[in-house]
Amino acid sequence: MDFSSKLLENAVNEMSQLPGIGKRTALRLVLHLLKQSKDQTSYLTSALHNFRNEIKLCEKCHNISDQSICEICRNPKRNPEILCVVEDIRDVMAIESTAQFKGFYHVLGGKISPIEGIGPHNLTIGSLVDKVKKGGIKEIILALSSTMEGDTTNFYIYRQLQNTEIQLTTIARGISVGDEIEYADEVTLGRSILNRIPFEGSLKS
Amino acid sequence: MDFSSKLLENAVNEMSQLPGIGKRTALRLVLHLLKQSKDQTSYLTSALHNFRNEIKLCEKCHNISDQSICEICRNPKRNPEILCVVEDIRDVMAIESTAQFKGFYHVLGGKISPIEGIGPHNLTIGSLVDKVKKGGIKEIILALSSTMEGDTTNFYIYRQLQNTEIQLTTIARGISVGDEIEYADEVTLGRSILNRIPFEGSLKS
Repeated sequence: MDFSSKLLENAVNEMSQLPGIGKRTALRLVLHLLKQSKDQTSYLTSALHNFRNEIKLCEKCHNISDQSICEICRNPKRNPEILCVVEDIRDVMAIESTAQFKGFYHVLGGKISPIEGIGPHNLTIGSLVDKVKKGGIKEIILALSSTMEGDTTNFYIYRQLQNTEIQLTTIARGISVGDEIEYADEVTLGRSILNRIPFEGSLKS
Repeated sequence: MDFSSKLLENAVNEMSQLPGIGKRTALRLVLHLLKQSKDQTSYLTSALHNFRNEIKLCEKCHNISDQSICEICRNPKRNPEILCVVEDIRDVMAIESTAQFKGFYHVLGGKISPIEGIGPHNLTIGSLVDKVKKGGIKEIILALSSTMEGDTTNFYIYRQLQNTEIQLTTIARGISVGDEIEYADEVTLGRSILNRIPFEGSLKS
């Protein structure tokens, strides 16, 4: 693309560094800023700047947080006996929005992935083990994505906690609510048959 | 969405003001910044800030420009007798990339659109008429989108320039190069038959 403006070219190049934003989309976004007041651009740039420079990681759960301990970890009404292990903050937000979990979280910050060069030591697994050793936790729910990396990470955590008294569970895999059985993939359908539950269990909401 | 972080929420809200960026995409983009160095975010925010605050409109063609006269208008090798009227900078970039046009541009800054409240006075049509009155221009090529608004704008410009000696042309509408005739829409196909050209003309590249 020939921009004939260095300012525009820089803005487009930086914008297109973001994932899923190509040069054309970046150009559209950047030109949109021109249609709005300069204040609007200031709001955007200062929000991004403040976010990047002031955001912290919660000392307890490693979730991103405005303060050294995040809102969830500061909530005294939550059950400290159950810990839910997730990959990142988006999973925390997804589980929080179900309103079905009242324990605390532990954010790993990723999954073990040799291809991407992410080993156990790049994640917060050590801190998870320490937390367990301190006592007080009875159950750990593994809520990682159902992928090769997720399964590897689950297994690694399982091995680390093998000699403890902790009850280790994983979230249920099966047919989505509302899905038709004939269109389900065979692996999911197979798992949902193997892990069938008593009918009374399915009546819980 | 429950962010549990004001910094994150602000960043996502500002990001999702951009066209075509929903809250989920904004969240993905903003969290991506965390995976990169703080410098990367600074580059992005300062590029956007500089672009918005330092960009000018070329005094001649009204295209966006780093200086008061844009690169294209400063080029002495271009033909000052032909002027191409376009909607915005993206059209300039598209036409420049064809390398088929060596005249100057005139950027309208939009199309006449009563629905969006854009009248002729919101565009640079007045400046176009002044430019024509100064003399030196022999042909004006109208290169607006082939929409109701584009046609209205074309017609308005035609009326403004009716009593001048200027030759007014519009870019050709027809079947795209590489398209199959059976799949072309009937309006385009009809126009391409009405506006057929001598076969020798199609041999030019």
